[in-house]
Amino acid sequence: MNNYSEIYKKELLDNVIPFWLEKSKDDVNGGYFTCLDREGNVFDTDKFMWLQGREVWMFATLYNKLEQKQEWLDMALHGADFMEKYGRDEEGNWYFSLNQKGEPLVQPYNIFSDCFAAMGFGALYEATKDEKYAEIAKSTFENILKRKNNTKGHYNKIYPGTRDLKSFSLPMILSNLSIELEPVLDKSLIDQLIKDSIHEVMDVFYHEDSGLILENVNLDGSFSDSFEGRLVNPGHTIEAMWFMMDLGKRINDEALIKRSVDIAINALEFGWDKKDEGIFYFLDLKGAPTQQLEWDQKLWWVQT
Amino acid sequence: MNNYSEIYKKELLDNVIPFWLEKSKDDVNGGYFTCLDREGNVFDTDKFMWLQGREVWMFATLYNKLEQKQEWLDMALHGADFMEKYGRDEEGNWYFSLNQKGEPLVQPYNIFSDCFAAMGFGALYEATKDEKYAEIAKSTFENILKRKNNTKGHYNKIYPGTRDLKSFSLPMILSNLSIELEPVLDKSLIDQLIKDSIHEVMDVFYHEDSGLILENVNLDGSFSDSFEGRLVNPGHTIEAMWFMMDLGKRINDEALIKRSVDIAINALEFGWDKKDEGIFYFLDLKGAPTQQLEWDQKLWWVQT
Repeated sequence: MNNYSEIYKKELLDNVIPFWLEKSKDDVNGGYFTCLDREGNVFDTDKFMWLQGREVWMFATLYNKLEQKQEWLDMALHGADFMEKYGRDEEGNWYFSLNQKGEPLVQPYNIFSDCFAAMGFGALYEATKDEKYAEIAKSTFENILKRKNNTKGHYNKIYPGTRDLKSFSLPMILSNLSIELEPVLDKSLIDQLIKDSIHEVMDVFYHEDSGLILENVNLDGSFSDSFEGRLVNPGHTIEAMWFMMDLGKRINDEALIKRSVDIAINALEFGWDKKDEGIFYFLDLKGAPTQQLEWDQKLWWVQT
Repeated sequence: MNNYSEIYKKELLDNVIPFWLEKSKDDVNGGYFTCLDREGNVFDTDKFMWLQGREVWMFATLYNKLEQKQEWLDMALHGADFMEKYGRDEEGNWYFSLNQKGEPLVQPYNIFSDCFAAMGFGALYEATKDEKYAEIAKSTFENILKRKNNTKGHYNKIYPGTRDLKSFSLPMILSNLSIELEPVLDKSLIDQLIKDSIHEVMDVFYHEDSGLILENVNLDGSFSDSFEGRLVNPGHTIEAMWFMMDLGKRINDEALIKRSVDIAINALEFGWDKKDEGIFYFLDLKGAPTQQLEWDQKLWWVQT
């Protein structure tokens, strides 16, 4: 184990981080290039707010947790500056993408740009103690909560009333935010958020019969026998269980950690491709075909 | 060639069509089941309007072109009845999907349900000469034209003004509709539609330098060096060239037919997977990665 941790640390610090430091900074327009080929050449200049937010978070977090290197902090500030200037619409919602100069391309049609922005600015506040960043993280988080009953707003294609479902992505991301935003939110809010997230993930979206986490359930938490209701995303489950383990450590709950490990292993077994190895992207709980064409792909984030 | 045509005809009439006749009819709620496994068991009961419309079209067209079998016409009427009752919202736009009983699940967020509905009812009018069906096909077609400058309405996620593109799918589907709806539309409208479609496909979306058809171009027809602008869908191109060949026959334009064959062969060569064979789903004109995760899949419709 120790051995692996050395290999990964060395690869991260000697190879991955210097690559992004050197190649992804847009010195002309601000922000980061994120569409890079293996040599670091930019093959597209669009700026996706998920990735801008995650890169701010990454460099701020390296600074916070590993070493207070000025170049890491500067790189985080470089992206945050661009995001602050161009990233939001008039209501403070984060766009999905901008062009190279920062002009909006795709509307804020869901809340995930906001989630990654909140995490980035939260980590940057921790690094700088500049209240401006806490304020952006906080107001973004409040916006997420405001939108949580219809995260897609008027972009939502679901006809209301026929089959109202709730999606796992919201409690999942809130469980992550509840740890990441601890420095900027009130303690009572964090405590409530942690409690609610654990309940939603481990009781509501957990499917007793299969021991798996479902991607969508009826509003009362029951199983919906539909394409959406039968959908299982093993990588999502494993990621959520890692958040649950973090929360277990945070609130000192050994039983939660143990249960999370069990569910993660179960998801890994269910999602494993016995023929070609790796973890499937999407599966149907009952073994039917999924609507997702990409169901059998081996996405990098699912495997990591 | 003759030999293949015999094999396909036999397979279609002795195997495929009887399978759908027997297995896809929902006798309780009307309409068709379209999520069938290889044995014909229903694994999901949702009713997608694309597929309802296409099945009405298929049985009506078999009746029109091949043989006036009553069971084919009855099957087309069975689906049309369900579509007519439940398929549209108050403005006459066709929903994307309904549940088994016909209650709306997904809103009319684009015009493709409408396209396939128009084709189905157009073919059914040809089969029955019932003006009711011509009326549905016609009003649906008018709705498509009304929505053509913003086919997705308020579901459109593109921020207006930064990078306004037009999409190949509209002229492509209009070129198909211009032939399919000939029985129900005015001759002058059809002639104009044919002229416009050929111009859009063969001049505007055709990319001189590569000899390929682009999926998206700037409003003035020029190339957009972006993920959307570089996108090539070889299967789309081949399908569009088949529509162009049909139009070439219809208006007696040998040069159009020859050019369509050349472009189709070029798309086939560009899209061919030299390692594992088959046609890729999406490619980037400049060889960069695409945003579509499913880019390297070998979809059935692309191959056929």
